[in-house]
Amino acid sequence: MLTFTDNRVVRLFNIQYPIIQGGMVWASGWQLASAVSNAGGLGLIGAGSMYPSVLEEHIRKCRAATTKPFGVNIPLMYPDVPALLEIIIREKVPIVFTSAGNPALYTQTLQSHGIKVVHVVSSSHFARKAAMAGCDAVVAEGFEAGGHNGREETTSLVLTPIVRETVTIPVIAAGGIASGNQMLAAFALGAEGVQVGTRFVCTPEASSHAAFKQAVIEAPEGGTQLMLKKLAPVRLLKNPFFYQVQEAENKGASKEELEQLLGRARAKSGMFEGNLETGELEIGQVSAQIKSIQPAADIVLELLQTFEQTLQQLSASYLAK
Amino acid sequence: MLTFTDNRVVRLFNIQYPIIQGGMVWASGWQLASAVSNAGGLGLIGAGSMYPSVLEEHIRKCRAATTKPFGVNIPLMYPDVPALLEIIIREKVPIVFTSAGNPALYTQTLQSHGIKVVHVVSSSHFARKAAMAGCDAVVAEGFEAGGHNGREETTSLVLTPIVRETVTIPVIAAGGIASGNQMLAAFALGAEGVQVGTRFVCTPEASSHAAFKQAVIEAPEGGTQLMLKKLAPVRLLKNPFFYQVQEAENKGASKEELEQLLGRARAKSGMFEGNLETGELEIGQVSAQIKSIQPAADIVLELLQTFEQTLQQLSASYLAK
Repeated sequence: MLTFTDNRVVRLFNIQYPIIQGGMVWASGWQLASAVSNAGGLGLIGAGSMYPSVLEEHIRKCRAATTKPFGVNIPLMYPDVPALLEIIIREKVPIVFTSAGNPALYTQTLQSHGIKVVHVVSSSHFARKAAMAGCDAVVAEGFEAGGHNGREETTSLVLTPIVRETVTIPVIAAGGIASGNQMLAAFALGAEGVQVGTRFVCTPEASSHAAFKQAVIEAPEGGTQLMLKKLAPVRLLKNPFFYQVQEAENKGASKEELEQLLGRARAKSGMFEGNLETGELEIGQVSAQIKSIQPAADIVLELLQTFEQTLQQLSASYLAK
Repeated sequence: MLTFTDNRVVRLFNIQYPIIQGGMVWASGWQLASAVSNAGGLGLIGAGSMYPSVLEEHIRKCRAATTKPFGVNIPLMYPDVPALLEIIIREKVPIVFTSAGNPALYTQTLQSHGIKVVHVVSSSHFARKAAMAGCDAVVAEGFEAGGHNGREETTSLVLTPIVRETVTIPVIAAGGIASGNQMLAAFALGAEGVQVGTRFVCTPEASSHAAFKQAVIEAPEGGTQLMLKKLAPVRLLKNPFFYQVQEAENKGASKEELEQLLGRARAKSGMFEGNLETGELEIGQVSAQIKSIQPAADIVLELLQTFEQTLQQLSASYLAK
C-alpha cells in the first residue's frame, strides 16, 4: 500500500496524494478542479482564460462541489492579475500557482493572507528566483508540456534533477506525465509531486470542447511541436493552423508577421469552441499516449496504482534481499 | 545490494550491469569502450567516424584491453557500411548497435554470425520495424540526446513507455541519462537498460579533444539546441558556428543553403581537433548537469550507487510496511 506521510507536497496542501491537476486555459474550470480535489489530489482552476467575474463564479462553484483544498493558477503577464488576486484573497482560496512572470511581485502579499504560493519554472535560474521570493514550492515544467514553454527547451528528465539540486523547497514535476510510470520517474528524479495537464484534458469534467478532446486522444506520436519561438514558445497540436505557422517560420517570418498570423482569441476558438482548423490547440507531447476520455477520479486512481505496482516491481527485481 | 539477474539486457550481452556507453563519433574509441566494458557495463566503439582500417585497429586494441564483451555502433547511412560490417564479422565482435537506417538490411546477416543486433530508434514506428527485422533489443533515444535525432522530437520521458508498449524485445533508454536518478527514471518507464553518451564524453578515456570536453562540462542549462531540422536534426552545443546556423534558420535559409553552411568535416574539426569556434559540437542536453571529467569506471559505479540508494529511498518512503 502507498503512503504519503513523508511527502512534503501532500503536507503543504493538506491533500491525500501528490497529484496536481494543471490549471489550463479553457480546460480547468470548477468541474475539473473539484473532481480532482474530491479524488484526493489538488485541483486548480485555470484563471488564464477567465475574466474576474468568471473566476469568482468558478471559485464559488468549486467550493460548493468540494470540501477539499483546491487552488487557482494565474499567468502573471495577464492584465487582469490584480483583480483576479483580489478575488482569490476575498474568496479565501488556500493555494495559488503562478506562472509566466516575476514571482517576487505577489508572493508575499498572498502569503500574508495565509495562501500557499507555488511558481511554475522552466529553468534552475527561475527556480532560484521563486525560492528567493519565498514561494512554498516550484513546478519544474519541461519541454514536453503543452502550451507556453521555456526558451531553453530543457526536458523534464533533465530539468527535474537540476531544479531539485538548486532549491530546497519541494519540486513538482510537470510536462510528460500522464501515467503512474511517468509519476514514478519524476519521483526518481527528485520530485515530490507531479502536475498533470494533458491527461486531465481527456476527462468529461474538463471544460474543453468535445471536438478538441477527441483530437487530443487521436493525436499520434509527433502530433505536437513547440512553435512560435520568435514570440513565446508554445506547444501546439498539428492542425491546419499549425502548418500555416510552420510554413511561415520555414520562410523566416519575423516576430511581427507571426503576431499578425496568430491574431487574437485563437486558443479560445480552438480549445473551447472546437474550431480544429483555425484554432490554436495547446496540448502536451503525452497526448500520443492517451487513448480515451476517463473521469478525473479514475485517472488519479490509475496513476497511484501504477506508481505503486511499478515501484514494487523495481524493488523486487533489483534490490537483493 | 543491487542484483541484475532478472534483467534481460544484462543476459543478452553477458555483462554485469545494464549500462551501455553510446558509440559516439570522435569520442568512443577502444580506450573508452574497453574501460566501460572492464567496469561491467557495455562499451561501444563508434564506427561512424572511422575508416574500415581504423575500426579494425580499434577492435583489436579493445580486445587486447578487455576480456569482457564489447560492441560497435554503426550509422547505417555511411558509405563504408559493407566494409565495416565485414571487419566486424571477421573480428568476431559479439554485439552491433545500428542507427540511422533500415534495420532490415543487415540484422539477419549479422545474427547468422552469432552477433547480437540492437537498433536505435526515435519512435514506436521505427521500434516496430526493428522488432520485425529480428533485432535483439532497441535503444529508444529521446530528444534530449546529443547529435542526430528524430524529427518528432519525442522526449525520453514520453518515448520510453511508448516504445515499451510497442515491442516485446528489451528497451534501452537513451537521451538525458547521466545519473543514477535518471537511470532509475528510465527503468520506471519500462527500460531494462540505459545508453549513456554525454556523460562518457567527460572521461579521460574518451578520444574527444580536451577543449571540447572542457566546453561540455562548462555548458550551462540551455547550452544545446536541436538545429538543422531542414537537413537532419542534430543537437549542437551553442558556439559561434551554432549561432551562424541559428541566424540562417531565422532568416528562412533553404536546405541547400544550410548544406553549404555546414560544409564537410565540421564534426571532426570541433569534437576531435578542438576547434570550438567553427566546429560542429554534438552533445546532449544533460551536459548542463556534468561538472567534471571522471574515469569511466567511476561513472559506472556512481550510476549504480545512486540508482540503488534512490530506489531504496523511494521504497522506504512510499511503500507502507
